[in-house]
Amino acid sequence: MPQLASRVKRLSPSPIREILEVISQPGMVSFAGGLPSPASFPALNNLSVPNEELQYGASEGNVALRELIAAQLTERGIDTSPDRVLVLSGSQQGIDLVAKLLIEEGASVAVESPTYLAALQVFSLFGASYCCFSPDSMQSINAQSSPALVYSIPTFQNPSGHCYSHEQRCSLAAAVDACDAVFFEDDPYRDLVYEACDRTPVCSLLQRSDWVYQSSFSKSLAPGLRLGYLTASESLFPLLVRAKQAADLHSNRVCQHIAHQLLSSPGAGARLKQLVDDYRRRRDHFDTLLQRYFGDIAQWQLPVGGLFFWLDLTAAPTLDTQPLLRAAVQQGVAFMPGEPFFADASAGCGALRLNFSHASAAEAERGLATLADLFSSAIAAHLTAPNHACVVTPDVAL
Amino acid sequence: MPQLASRVKRLSPSPIREILEVISQPGMVSFAGGLPSPASFPALNNLSVPNEELQYGASEGNVALRELIAAQLTERGIDTSPDRVLVLSGSQQGIDLVAKLLIEEGASVAVESPTYLAALQVFSLFGASYCCFSPDSMQSINAQSSPALVYSIPTFQNPSGHCYSHEQRCSLAAAVDACDAVFFEDDPYRDLVYEACDRTPVCSLLQRSDWVYQSSFSKSLAPGLRLGYLTASESLFPLLVRAKQAADLHSNRVCQHIAHQLLSSPGAGARLKQLVDDYRRRRDHFDTLLQRYFGDIAQWQLPVGGLFFWLDLTAAPTLDTQPLLRAAVQQGVAFMPGEPFFADASAGCGALRLNFSHASAAEAERGLATLADLFSSAIAAHLTAPNHACVVTPDVAL
Repeated sequence: MPQLASRVKRLSPSPIREILEVISQPGMVSFAGGLPSPASFPALNNLSVPNEELQYGASEGNVALRELIAAQLTERGIDTSPDRVLVLSGSQQGIDLVAKLLIEEGASVAVESPTYLAALQVFSLFGASYCCFSPDSMQSINAQSSPALVYSIPTFQNPSGHCYSHEQRCSLAAAVDACDAVFFEDDPYRDLVYEACDRTPVCSLLQRSDWVYQSSFSKSLAPGLRLGYLTASESLFPLLVRAKQAADLHSNRVCQHIAHQLLSSPGAGARLKQLVDDYRRRRDHFDTLLQRYFGDIAQWQLPVGGLFFWLDLTAAPTLDTQPLLRAAVQQGVAFMPGEPFFADASAGCGALRLNFSHASAAEAERGLATLADLFSSAIAAHLTAPNHACVVTPDVAL
Repeated sequence: MPQLASRVKRLSPSPIREILEVISQPGMVSFAGGLPSPASFPALNNLSVPNEELQYGASEGNVALRELIAAQLTERGIDTSPDRVLVLSGSQQGIDLVAKLLIEEGASVAVESPTYLAALQVFSLFGASYCCFSPDSMQSINAQSSPALVYSIPTFQNPSGHCYSHEQRCSLAAAVDACDAVFFEDDPYRDLVYEACDRTPVCSLLQRSDWVYQSSFSKSLAPGLRLGYLTASESLFPLLVRAKQAADLHSNRVCQHIAHQLLSSPGAGARLKQLVDDYRRRRDHFDTLLQRYFGDIAQWQLPVGGLFFWLDLTAAPTLDTQPLLRAAVQQGVAFMPGEPFFADASAGCGALRLNFSHASAAEAERGLATLADLFSSAIAAHLTAPNHACVVTPDVAL
């Protein structure tokens, strides 16, 4: 092996990547990734892309698309303008750009516990150490822990599904303001809202801190377009544009053109409403199935938005769920173990994340019945012999 | 300003980015960027994209596209397979991924002098120090300078236009093998070949070193698709895939689908031949114009491929050409100053890069006449008072 940068030792394989491989196997029921329903995707037929969209373009992205995004962001209460919108090659890229600017070896980063695992992957690559907080407990965000960055998904959090109350949003903004951190708000799920709830961007409640706010078209349009966007406070925005330019010059213009056409078409609002109605039905059906199959071994909150149920295995709160994934996949079902979502996971957390937007009703029933059998057996074994709970060995390279 | 990672102080604004803004002004004649002719772009009409291409996909990219790429690479003599091809969001991304894996603060990187300025931008961001080499002088690539990475564009080099001879290719491979560096071959221009010449990939001549080879669809299809690809030696490839996954999960699938359709269509070979014939004519016309307007003040080689003429101002070899860019743009012409292409540029280099693929014949004539006037005046002033040569002040934020 050649001489590598020391950060490479922290470049762990992503469980998401493994999942994306697994779910493409025919017949697999996947509750694992945050995959939208294919039925929700717009039909891309008879497309024409103007010649000028095939040339190199500005790093910031398509002007008309940025105007449309800025108008939406302003409506949400965010202080921005088209000049301060950067189109991203998916919101994963925003995490990479922010990490490049703010994280170096040993920098303290405050994250929810649990949080989005691919954000942890990037922060760790750049050398983050973590202090963890939750919507109920933000004491760790303080001048002593001095985080360079506070990363949060306040609305339909991944993986917990939690939506911060207005009080929790204000508390988080105040905690950030008190410790000179940059606030990084990740908001990919906000359009997928099933019940009335507060979705005020936390960055709009800040009094003095610098901030970055990002969202994605992966959930409301289609992930295959690989488009997201960010805006940021005035001092940070130009640096993010430079980092973007160094990363890939600019995002692909063909999909920006397509996204702008879809979002500015007369049917865009109705399309989103239909998608949300469909996902609400899927969520409710999934909840009914969960009560039937997991009612005795787990607890969960009905998510008011987003794509996930987060299950706490009340009967075995220290069970490591990771080793069960391989057995589940062998039986044709994929789920997401809870452990990779914790910055400080050293032991089993007795939790798992289940996506409800991708599987059909019949697949959901079959998959949850299979999973419940598997988890019931594992829990029984765990209670008998906690140190040898797992019938299969861990295998990150699944 | 919040607490930023120390690397941010090295995040310089890219001259390329400024250029991409300038060239979009109406009426501007641009010799600055490596912009393909819009006439070369494929017509994207009546496109249909299958529903499944709108879902998340594998980090490595579209399987059929990777098979096609692997077949082309194997034909070029590169040891690879579809499993070892990674589709990139443009080849700029490959530079970011390789830098993440191999460059940390103070790492030595060997680069040609001059070399691609946006590669220098990324390497510097990650903390590179440089040792420079040229096709004629590779002594600096040795065990003592111990480069972690040797970056080269052997075929139609950017900016010089040089194509390494077979002997130079063998020498470079031997120098790399002798010092345990990773070899990074950037090969975006190889399809744009106007005269018979050796284009053997240097990575195929290595005996023992690890390597990364990348190319792009920006020059042969269209930059707006933002698609490139890499392959690498076996030990490095899985790390590059992980870094890609952390950077943007995967490249946009809509454009991968389009690129595969274009490249596998019966007319693909004829389309490329037509493009090359057109560019050869443009090059020859540009050369004629250069002789007319720059014959007295500059020297250049006729490039056997690629997109650029590199002009040495023989009358003023230490003239800093950067301050002239603003004056040129004010007169409606953009060119690329030579200085940003040098890792060790502290003084004027008396050189500039001119792209010949983008401007029409009439624009090229008008632009070169304007530029020659400007340069002649600047050279006269420089010879009179070398320390006050520049009639306009430097302005990186052009």
